[in-house]
Amino acid sequence: MCGIVGATSVSEVLPILLKGLEKLEYRGYDSAGVYVNYSESKDYLIKAKGRVSALEEETSKVEIHGTSGIAHTRWATHGGVTVENAHPHKSEDGRFYLVHNGVIENYEALRDTYLQGVTLQSQTDTEVAVQLIDKFAKDNQLNALEALRMMISKLDGNSAYGFLLMDRQEPGIMYAAKRKSPLLIGVSEGTNVVTSDATAVLDITHDFIELIDGEVAIVSKDKVTLLNEAGETIVRAPYHLDIDESATDKGVYPYYMLKEIDEQAIVAHTLAQHYFDEAGQIINIDADIISQIKRADRLYIVAAGTSYHAGLVGKRYFEQWTHTPTEVHIASEFAYDQPLLSENPFFIFLSQSGETADSREVLQNIKAQQFPTLTIANVMNSTLTREADFALPLLAGPEIAVASTKAYTAQIIVQVILAHAVENSGLDLKEELAKLAIDMQTIIDDKEIFKTIAEEALDGQRSAFYIGRGLDAAVAMEAALKLKEISYVQTEGFAAGELKHGTISLIEDATPVFGLITQSKTAGLVRGNIEETKARGANAIVLATQSLSRPGDDYVLPDVNELLAPVLSVIPAQLIAYYSTLARGLDVDRPRNLAKSVTVQ
Amino acid sequence: MCGIVGATSVSEVLPILLKGLEKLEYRGYDSAGVYVNYSESKDYLIKAKGRVSALEEETSKVEIHGTSGIAHTRWATHGGVTVENAHPHKSEDGRFYLVHNGVIENYEALRDTYLQGVTLQSQTDTEVAVQLIDKFAKDNQLNALEALRMMISKLDGNSAYGFLLMDRQEPGIMYAAKRKSPLLIGVSEGTNVVTSDATAVLDITHDFIELIDGEVAIVSKDKVTLLNEAGETIVRAPYHLDIDESATDKGVYPYYMLKEIDEQAIVAHTLAQHYFDEAGQIINIDADIISQIKRADRLYIVAAGTSYHAGLVGKRYFEQWTHTPTEVHIASEFAYDQPLLSENPFFIFLSQSGETADSREVLQNIKAQQFPTLTIANVMNSTLTREADFALPLLAGPEIAVASTKAYTAQIIVQVILAHAVENSGLDLKEELAKLAIDMQTIIDDKEIFKTIAEEALDGQRSAFYIGRGLDAAVAMEAALKLKEISYVQTEGFAAGELKHGTISLIEDATPVFGLITQSKTAGLVRGNIEETKARGANAIVLATQSLSRPGDDYVLPDVNELLAPVLSVIPAQLIAYYSTLARGLDVDRPRNLAKSVTVQ
Repeated sequence: MCGIVGATSVSEVLPILLKGLEKLEYRGYDSAGVYVNYSESKDYLIKAKGRVSALEEETSKVEIHGTSGIAHTRWATHGGVTVENAHPHKSEDGRFYLVHNGVIENYEALRDTYLQGVTLQSQTDTEVAVQLIDKFAKDNQLNALEALRMMISKLDGNSAYGFLLMDRQEPGIMYAAKRKSPLLIGVSEGTNVVTSDATAVLDITHDFIELIDGEVAIVSKDKVTLLNEAGETIVRAPYHLDIDESATDKGVYPYYMLKEIDEQAIVAHTLAQHYFDEAGQIINIDADIISQIKRADRLYIVAAGTSYHAGLVGKRYFEQWTHTPTEVHIASEFAYDQPLLSENPFFIFLSQSGETADSREVLQNIKAQQFPTLTIANVMNSTLTREADFALPLLAGPEIAVASTKAYTAQIIVQVILAHAVENSGLDLKEELAKLAIDMQTIIDDKEIFKTIAEEALDGQRSAFYIGRGLDAAVAMEAALKLKEISYVQTEGFAAGELKHGTISLIEDATPVFGLITQSKTAGLVRGNIEETKARGANAIVLATQSLSRPGDDYVLPDVNELLAPVLSVIPAQLIAYYSTLARGLDVDRPRNLAKSVTVQ
Repeated sequence: MCGIVGATSVSEVLPILLKGLEKLEYRGYDSAGVYVNYSESKDYLIKAKGRVSALEEETSKVEIHGTSGIAHTRWATHGGVTVENAHPHKSEDGRFYLVHNGVIENYEALRDTYLQGVTLQSQTDTEVAVQLIDKFAKDNQLNALEALRMMISKLDGNSAYGFLLMDRQEPGIMYAAKRKSPLLIGVSEGTNVVTSDATAVLDITHDFIELIDGEVAIVSKDKVTLLNEAGETIVRAPYHLDIDESATDKGVYPYYMLKEIDEQAIVAHTLAQHYFDEAGQIINIDADIISQIKRADRLYIVAAGTSYHAGLVGKRYFEQWTHTPTEVHIASEFAYDQPLLSENPFFIFLSQSGETADSREVLQNIKAQQFPTLTIANVMNSTLTREADFALPLLAGPEIAVASTKAYTAQIIVQVILAHAVENSGLDLKEELAKLAIDMQTIIDDKEIFKTIAEEALDGQRSAFYIGRGLDAAVAMEAALKLKEISYVQTEGFAAGELKHGTISLIEDATPVFGLITQSKTAGLVRGNIEETKARGANAIVLATQSLSRPGDDYVLPDVNELLAPVLSVIPAQLIAYYSTLARGLDVDRPRNLAKSVTVQ
């Protein structure tokens, strides 16, 4: 994963780099580092383990000047979390400095072939890359650009990279190159920047030049030169990115996650406004999307993590309303074990960031097979939205907390709307969504109840379960992910009927088992399964919709069309995850080991 | 779940009942109980919490005589594990005694409607049933048969039951009734028995009369009368069951699980002998099965637990060799949320016992839709094999340990053979299976290695992960289930690429992460994912096939056709589960909360 930012300017760049890293922390926060060049003979390389704030403390100890530099925040892939493994990495002789986002698959083979005489300082694939550049430059009398391109030519096809390189001998110049990993060039008067994510530099510019796989860019403070894979100069105009920087501010909230949970009702409202006109007719969905889905004999939803769980819910809308069989696939599995496809498939990619490497790999394969593709994502202008035939926005606003909340509910709602657009569901959907938004707010406003449930049920527990059937099983999987990824309580989401086929042996005295009951046809069976866990000592917490509730249930959700229930029933789970994590004194927004946007495979 | 045995004889029945319960413990061992009738005025009801051995201790304290009786071993569904909740349950006045396997969905409504004046002694649905019989008998002057039928008529359609009822006023008579739950009548000279599983009474008889859903039987020591749902007498001839009772003996092994792991190579050999002739041609697969699969446009594999995991593997054979798109479904989900089906589906049910209630529910739905069905199971003459259009045996011999091992590998091998029978795989499959059996034995013989791995990696750990991609991901899920269901180490099996989308936050110092590497196209990616966990402190244990192994891997599996690798790579996981459970001092064969054959939904 990792986040990259670099700048070359008429003025000091350290503040730009540090502020950029702060914004990029969602891409990884195992370690951070910065390289600033003052002149051919004076430069600074500073690295620190942990958060960007640790790096800032280190840089504050030295007086640093320089008008060009590169910086990096790391999500560890190869090599442990140490200062040595932090980026930027440098060549043995201190000439080249490199930051990297991605994975070099064949770095061990390259190291063994070319770097026998070189003593490596780290366990990273990235250091191998920068040492190779130095080696090739020395051995073949190449300049930085040539050595970079030669190094790239040695990487195997599975490797992914966003590189940003500086050569101490050329102050003020950055070399950027990418394949599979995102990299953008931001342009402005007197300062040009390169970054893995536009949000890192929105206070500098909103104008960006896209870098395409295989290209290399030479960036100075007043000039950007693009070279294609053959080394020929190409020209590409910048595009203007219309994002409000202030939307990424968490304001009065202690954590972004709570802010984002709170925003869900507004997002539902925004989506209803965006996708329906005054008369309740669908708008803002390309007629081609609808006709292509109608033509498809089978839909394939491809996603990862929380988005995958949203896909499991979405499947029901497409099957029930558009009568199109729908399969939901984990992107990283589909990429290398593509199932047999139907004759006329239509692909839907779900993502928050639009940069998920696993999904991107699938998208490229599918495009090569010339099947139609749609990306539903929160960040438009992202790789997945740009590269798919069609794109629909989630309009959830920036999601900063690593644990996704409002993007999940938005993904479900957009799928609801899309399925309805393809084949009228018979619902007055705009009206239903308006009601849904009010119900969402009701549940959100009950946060003290979930705080109490979280503190009582999860105190001291290391395991938990969410169970349900049908749509409730799909939500149980997302609910479990939410809890485990931030509280580190190992939680499994289960089809309630499957628990007894082995996993129920984990239930012991007071193990929390959250039962979701929103589907009338299976409500009785889920209650039976909950009883089975209680018979073994479980502390069962039942969340049921009004009409299916019984005395003693722990929370009663408002009644809603049963197909739309996931949008409501996930909210208690989000709040339970939030409060149990808070009670454990952990960082809600930045759980260990994770990164917001997963741009490695 | 639960196990039922009853007997009426010319001689004492207590030994028959206790021996039967021992054999039935695999169906649940939360509590056990027995009712023996000596005469209208003298009878015995004895119950105990825990294993059958605890009940035997209780019965040994009293001198018990009687020539008819019923007994039960319980897997708790409604109501905790207590003596009060153990079966048999009796009516308030001590006239009726009932054992029950299944779940009465509407027992609370029935209780509130009919039993306001009755003080219930337990929290079970079963007691409601027996009190209803008594109530109906009293209020309406009904005999036992009439009262039983009236009670049954009040149960809602989702309820499942195998009932065995005795009326103190009619010594020597048992009333049996069933719906969804299995119940068989065993007949012999001087002794007739009723049981949920033939293996409980094989020392009495091998001749059984099948009871069909909705029927009631009146059984005395020399007569069996069957009534259909309308109350009309019907006649059905017994069938002879050809099972060797001695095969259920664990012999020199400390646990059945180890015996069954050891038997896997022999099972592979047996399957090769059974399904191929001398010339390597397929035999013993009905030509209709093959033609119906050829005709199908899509296969649906339906199963639960370990069998579901075997289906995930089987999918690849059908897709790669027969080129038929294949979906694998969790039975309990499919039953109530049936996905949109293709036009010409073919259904394959995978089961060990052939009695899995979840799968049976699906089979009944599918039969009602008149689609062709095949059951692949270990117990022929079981409900699923009898009710499907076709059946193929696993020939694994009795599997007694709750954690399935040899049935899983046998399920994979039979799917391999079946896919090859439909469309020649191009492999000399008989030869490949012979080689596979030898490789299986090699791994099994390395058990000391896995004992060491288990003891070192899992000592004191509460969490673990198995990861892999493609077929290795499917095996990872089974490997995780094996470990967690018997050792209670919460283990998740993951598609290696999906871990970073949240769950990786659970990795901490020394968390065991088992990496499976048997598939060349994803080997590099899985190694990358393993590195990601190591970078966060995980104790990575790598199991790789010879040609994909690297120095330092923890175990090297023999090279094999990559599609067949799951049969090998699961064995280390089985042995690691076994030895880590042993090291924790737990009962390997009978993990808490579980039952071998899951006959409730």
